[in-house]
Amino acid sequence: MRLVDSLATTEPLAEVFSDEAVLATMLRFEIALARAESRAGVIPAGAADAIAHAAVVEGFDTMSIAHAARESGTVVIPFVEALIAQVAQQDPRASTFVHWGATSQDVADTTLILCLSRALPIFESDHGRLTSALRRLSDRHATTVMLGRTLLQPAPPITFGLKAAGWFAAVSRTGRQMFDAFRRARVLQFGGATGTLAALGERGLTVATELARELELAEPPAPWHSHRDRLASVVTACGVYCGALGKIARDVTLLMQHEVAEAAEPGGGSSTMPHKKNPAGCGIALASALRVPGLVATFLSAMPQEHERGVGAWTAEASTLASVVQATGAALVSMADVIGALHVDADRMRANIAATRDTVFAERAMMVLSPHIGRESTRRMIADALDAARRDNQSFASALAATAGAAGVHLSSELSNLASPEAYLGSADTLRRRLLNEDAE
Amino acid sequence: MRLVDSLATTEPLAEVFSDEAVLATMLRFEIALARAESRAGVIPAGAADAIAHAAVVEGFDTMSIAHAARESGTVVIPFVEALIAQVAQQDPRASTFVHWGATSQDVADTTLILCLSRALPIFESDHGRLTSALRRLSDRHATTVMLGRTLLQPAPPITFGLKAAGWFAAVSRTGRQMFDAFRRARVLQFGGATGTLAALGERGLTVATELARELELAEPPAPWHSHRDRLASVVTACGVYCGALGKIARDVTLLMQHEVAEAAEPGGGSSTMPHKKNPAGCGIALASALRVPGLVATFLSAMPQEHERGVGAWTAEASTLASVVQATGAALVSMADVIGALHVDADRMRANIAATRDTVFAERAMMVLSPHIGRESTRRMIADALDAARRDNQSFASALAATAGAAGVHLSSELSNLASPEAYLGSADTLRRRLLNEDAE
Amino acid sequence: MRLVDSLATTEPLAEVFSDEAVLATMLRFEIALARAESRAGVIPAGAADAIAHAAVVEGFDTMSIAHAARESGTVVIPFVEALIAQVAQQDPRASTFVHWGATSQDVADTTLILCLSRALPIFESDHGRLTSALRRLSDRHATTVMLGRTLLQPAPPITFGLKAAGWFAAVSRTGRQMFDAFRRARVLQFGGATGTLAALGERGLTVATELARELELAEPPAPWHSHRDRLASVVTACGVYCGALGKIARDVTLLMQHEVAEAAEPGGGSSTMPHKKNPAGCGIALASALRVPGLVATFLSAMPQEHERGVGAWTAEASTLASVVQATGAALVSMADVIGALHVDADRMRANIAATRDTVFAERAMMVLSPHIGRESTRRMIADALDAARRDNQSFASALAATAGAAGVHLSSELSNLASPEAYLGSADTLRRRLLNEDAE
Amino acid sequence: MRLVDSLATTEPLAEVFSDEAVLATMLRFEIALARAESRAGVIPAGAADAIAHAAVVEGFDTMSIAHAARESGTVVIPFVEALIAQVAQQDPRASTFVHWGATSQDVADTTLILCLSRALPIFESDHGRLTSALRRLSDRHATTVMLGRTLLQPAPPITFGLKAAGWFAAVSRTGRQMFDAFRRARVLQFGGATGTLAALGERGLTVATELARELELAEPPAPWHSHRDRLASVVTACGVYCGALGKIARDVTLLMQHEVAEAAEPGGGSSTMPHKKNPAGCGIALASALRVPGLVATFLSAMPQEHERGVGAWTAEASTLASVVQATGAALVSMADVIGALHVDADRMRANIAATRDTVFAERAMMVLSPHIGRESTRRMIADALDAARRDNQSFASALAATAGAAGVHLSSELSNLASPEAYLGSADTLRRRLLNEDAE
Repeated sequence: MRLVDSLATTEPLAEVFSDEAVLATMLRFEIALARAESRAGVIPAGAADAIAHAAVVEGFDTMSIAHAARESGTVVIPFVEALIAQVAQQDPRASTFVHWGATSQDVADTTLILCLSRALPIFESDHGRLTSALRRLSDRHATTVMLGRTLLQPAPPITFGLKAAGWFAAVSRTGRQMFDAFRRARVLQFGGATGTLAALGERGLTVATELARELELAEPPAPWHSHRDRLASVVTACGVYCGALGKIARDVTLLMQHEVAEAAEPGGGSSTMPHKKNPAGCGIALASALRVPGLVATFLSAMPQEHERGVGAWTAEASTLASVVQATGAALVSMADVIGALHVDADRMRANIAATRDTVFAERAMMVLSPHIGRESTRRMIADALDAARRDNQSFASALAATAGAAGVHLSSELSNLASPEAYLGSADTLRRRLLNEDAE
Repeated sequence: MRLVDSLATTEPLAEVFSDEAVLATMLRFEIALARAESRAGVIPAGAADAIAHAAVVEGFDTMSIAHAARESGTVVIPFVEALIAQVAQQDPRASTFVHWGATSQDVADTTLILCLSRALPIFESDHGRLTSALRRLSDRHATTVMLGRTLLQPAPPITFGLKAAGWFAAVSRTGRQMFDAFRRARVLQFGGATGTLAALGERGLTVATELARELELAEPPAPWHSHRDRLASVVTACGVYCGALGKIARDVTLLMQHEVAEAAEPGGGSSTMPHKKNPAGCGIALASALRVPGLVATFLSAMPQEHERGVGAWTAEASTLASVVQATGAALVSMADVIGALHVDADRMRANIAATRDTVFAERAMMVLSPHIGRESTRRMIADALDAARRDNQSFASALAATAGAAGVHLSSELSNLASPEAYLGSADTLRRRLLNEDAE
Repeated sequence: MRLVDSLATTEPLAEVFSDEAVLATMLRFEIALARAESRAGVIPAGAADAIAHAAVVEGFDTMSIAHAARESGTVVIPFVEALIAQVAQQDPRASTFVHWGATSQDVADTTLILCLSRALPIFESDHGRLTSALRRLSDRHATTVMLGRTLLQPAPPITFGLKAAGWFAAVSRTGRQMFDAFRRARVLQFGGATGTLAALGERGLTVATELARELELAEPPAPWHSHRDRLASVVTACGVYCGALGKIARDVTLLMQHEVAEAAEPGGGSSTMPHKKNPAGCGIALASALRVPGLVATFLSAMPQEHERGVGAWTAEASTLASVVQATGAALVSMADVIGALHVDADRMRANIAATRDTVFAERAMMVLSPHIGRESTRRMIADALDAARRDNQSFASALAATAGAAGVHLSSELSNLASPEAYLGSADTLRRRLLNEDAE
Repeated sequence: MRLVDSLATTEPLAEVFSDEAVLATMLRFEIALARAESRAGVIPAGAADAIAHAAVVEGFDTMSIAHAARESGTVVIPFVEALIAQVAQQDPRASTFVHWGATSQDVADTTLILCLSRALPIFESDHGRLTSALRRLSDRHATTVMLGRTLLQPAPPITFGLKAAGWFAAVSRTGRQMFDAFRRARVLQFGGATGTLAALGERGLTVATELARELELAEPPAPWHSHRDRLASVVTACGVYCGALGKIARDVTLLMQHEVAEAAEPGGGSSTMPHKKNPAGCGIALASALRVPGLVATFLSAMPQEHERGVGAWTAEASTLASVVQATGAALVSMADVIGALHVDADRMRANIAATRDTVFAERAMMVLSPHIGRESTRRMIADALDAARRDNQSFASALAATAGAAGVHLSSELSNLASPEAYLGSADTLRRRLLNEDAE
């Protein structure tokens, strides 16, 4: 976790893509390959043992591998050379069978897939924490009324429980899609030079099956070296999920404004202002929601890869994918923390409705009056009442009563509780409960 | 279909998003709403009839609606005003019940969904045409050998049937995902001002159910005004699908180079060069594969929409979504045409293998020799043979025989057919068949 | 201006990229080419006259050109064919000299450049209107105090004049860069088939010079068919400019929240809520600020075009460029309107400072106290005072006096006006004036 | 330089953004601030010395700072706390004056600017190396003829010198723009909490001037905390520059195809195919040209930052900017290496023209014949000759002579050298020389 990227990842995810982890995973591939090939009778059993014995992280210098990667266009070539050298030191004959029949892309792609596999349970755990917290929040505030706000202007009331249920359902839906994409992508890449497994003769498919089993990956119908859609689906699903997280973060930062003050995350301080409490967690999620879309665009535009292995486009993927996964995970942890500790001020929510001088109920008056006196008359009467309410700093309900009285219109008893938020919630709670059931879909 | 966008759409899809279609769809929503509300006893039956009667495309001036949209921030407001005026002309009292209890976003979003619904069968038909053509192509060339090419350099052979099967499987997989996303998005948007249906009191959910039935859309658990993930999934799935189409187009343009000449689309001419045949169809698909990723990024970055209706972000969606769908459809039609009429030159494919002077079989020699004489000796011997083949313009097989002979190494009979493409195809055909079965997944 | 794009353009800019304008511009190119070639003695003078005579918009069917474009991969080929047919009807011999020595890309690219040239004065006029309005706003509110806000939390005061000056300077700086980019791009594209002007023999450069003169464009050092950097610079400069416009729009929408109520644009209404006034203008600008970045990504990723004319990448440009220019212009007009009519509530601005109970002046207290009693003691004392202010709903100044008194610390006279915004503005007005002078840079 | 990012940076640029360099730069800021404030009489001289003394890289634990950054939303807060602790250990009183009057963003933004300043000479040196190599290449191949290629199809000839000059001019133009953007961005960020420098009273501007001088940065008209256009211009200029580099890389990879074989970079090997030479350098440049556009989109979409400091958007910048600079520098070094060592095969270039059977000269025949026999007759005659050439595998020149003879048309002496590339180069060399002079613009 570097300073410049510290808000773009988390410690567990930084570890997943760390040099040590990447190196260990590449070694794991080569060991598994040797074992699979030995089992299939392709290479001597002793060679597999020798390779497994030599393939330990400590023997490798990642700096020099990273350096040499610029010459060959992939880290795998210097990595394999280093592994051959390590094996050769202990068993020269076995070194012949290192990376037997495989190509660089087999190692690189399967390593990415295995990194994704390690990220998955981290995501699942944080996702579970977030959805539980959202569900609790929604239940706790099932009857807490607050302003609806459209285009950042006050609108008829909703419940905070409904808002939280909307967050919950979006995160649940997009999480489901994301986890599906991760699982569909958990497939071995193993095709040899051009994806035919020709170097392994008739035993290529046997080796592939054994290798997939060793690595606990599914075996795809065929190698997918230049068909990147499974990875692209992971990346885009992360993008959609980040958008859903960013939506929550956007709402919370807006509710946390001092002038609104309806909800607050614990937040962070300032280096110069002692009074400050900043939406630091939401900031991290919003940053991810801004960064991931651009990374998604990169991944998609890199899909048309030439023939059996692309030049450039394939190279563009690894750091992009690692950035997407880390940014998504960073947003997820932040929002799980934010929602888990969210402070909600129900009194202020109600007060902010009242502070509109009940004008947000003008729609309600419109619905009640217009069947009686027609759309145009109602529109004029309400416009007058709204003006009067603003001018005289009175409530819209009073102003409307006066305006109607002056016009000789009798306001029905239906409007007696015009300014009661509870009386104008429509199907809010039914919808809330439906949304909370959505993860059972 | 405008000149400046003519390669970014097709006629049927341009029609889906045309002014006339959009207007007709908005009218369809308002008619369906009135019917649903009349059936639910919310508005008088006569009002629904009057609305249905007045809501005909001919009565509206789309230019002035488009113009007025800039004032109100959405086309729906001037549209509804125009509709009210139309109804009022015929039945003033009924005009009160136009758009009853709905909000602008209900109309705008459901209209988009209905446009998507109209695009879907167009996509399905073209997709079926493309996948059938790809399957035929793969079957026809099951045994046609050609160079594998990695990083645009020659590599051991594959079959053209395998390449086409890879295209098929990628298009099938990503098409399945895309159609799923379209279907998941076929849901009504109907929530009123802030998504509670408060204006309809206790009958909101009944109206919603009736409205969904009228419009042949599914009813979602709740309104989704500021949760845009279903649309985002359509957009991203189009992005991944376009990438799969672009990959085919990339390969075909490369095969169509005069120097390669292994395959060709019918193509287009030039305004000045009589000899030219250009990959015009592939160009359209590649253009879409370049344009859609940026549009996807826009859609994703617009997801964190404020509270119950976003400002700006929501506005950014309509033209973005319309562009994505049209670009995807344009790429799809082009590739269906290209593949349906693809000219393949199997002789040239084989000749291009031979033109490498068999050097692409060096890997095969490596696999055969190194178990006998060790990795390092083999590497040196093959390097010498490759140098000799280049220097003396002879085949690698001959050069290797000479080099081996000089070194006293006996080349096993296994290498007697070293330069036979058919002898080094590994599991190509099994993989090909597996890929063609992938759409049955 | 179509319904689906109505918020993504303006009428004058929609006209610039309309079928009629694009067609007229292509015709203008062909007429100018014929004249230049006639003057250079390359084609007969009569041919130029005949071409000019036949090249009138009315004779062309843009629909069928757009349709045919999908076959040839560019609108220019069917356009040139239609022009030849038009000329041939009147003067068969002259028709030979239509498009003489030019290639499709010469027409298409120069047409785009001429469209940009027509957009430029529209941009300049609106930009002038916006910057004038911003300057006036800043001057008018030179001494209007308001909360600074960081991470959407209250912070020490600024002046609204300073905020407006910051907007002004950003728009001025980025406008200057954008106009420079437009001017650098005003160059002729004319190279013939591969950019050597070979078809014109020794007179190619003479024709190019004459053609540039006819079209009032600069003559570049050489044709730039596959070097798209000048257009890319226009696109990216629009992107940066849109970002600066979007920043203003973001601020205004936030100030316009009911709970903040410090500034408001005239705004638009709602289809269902009579009380609503929405930031419709800002919404258009924010939508552009969201859409343009993705379009910029597309344009940049299309830059690596193959050899002397790219396949696909070139095709991706036209609609992207047209969208960028229209979105930028739409944002610009909206913000010129918004700022020109912005309502500012200076009283509310001051009241919102007071509503923090002066806690935003805690930094000031920190700066004054800590040199006397040290950082840690000050930090503790201020933290206590902030807690007390919140707990007892009193002003931070009173709470601090009490806390300090209890600790036996004498608050210096420097802090007597602790809660006076005017006393804690630092260099705000000097900075404001400097920013307003920035366009003189 | 991590494994996963090894192709996305270079060692010198990885160092610029390394933890050690970032930490050292933040310390440099705080030391310079203390000195400037001491000189301006704002803090005691002894405090500045004590701060300078304690502010050494060795005393800081970057891991724990990075960890704590997630709490506060910026690395600066834990960094400043650690610095205060370091100073307090040695001189408790001086610790009061650490970071005096500054805000986190002052440190973070100025640190980014100083990182850019360190990257600039690295870029300048590599850019000089690349442009020199391109100029040499163009001069050396001033008369080397090769196929022009449009839409990846053969077209009339150009010279390789002209192609290289086009690369040169694009890189020169976009480099100039990029370096200008870097220089415009070399400005101090220093504004205190909200950009008024209020904490420093009347001496804020004096401190700013001194601080800028200490850090060798220009002093902007005012703090620019929420106006990110200067950085956005750096990012977009890198994007355009990467596009120009990617164009060269695209062309080289295509020329390097075995079937074309006109040019080759030294390249890298394969982990399994002994015969392979891969365009590894071009691959790195193409990867950057794919990755940077998405990063540009992120940066632009993050521009509309709220009020005096954005939430989320600001956070999204640092890693994005660092990625852009490193990717651009990686592409630049790779292309400088590729072009510096490019192998060109002039014989093959000429042979590839001939291999079209001279059909690329059909345009030339068109230009010569049609004034005599009219456009339509010429078109038909040439089409027949092209067909004959293909059918009978003869040269277009012979086929045309036969076709013309059969039609009784006398081919003018102008066409005697129809198939001579040198006779159909138009103004290629003049244009080449003009392009090479473009950097003198």
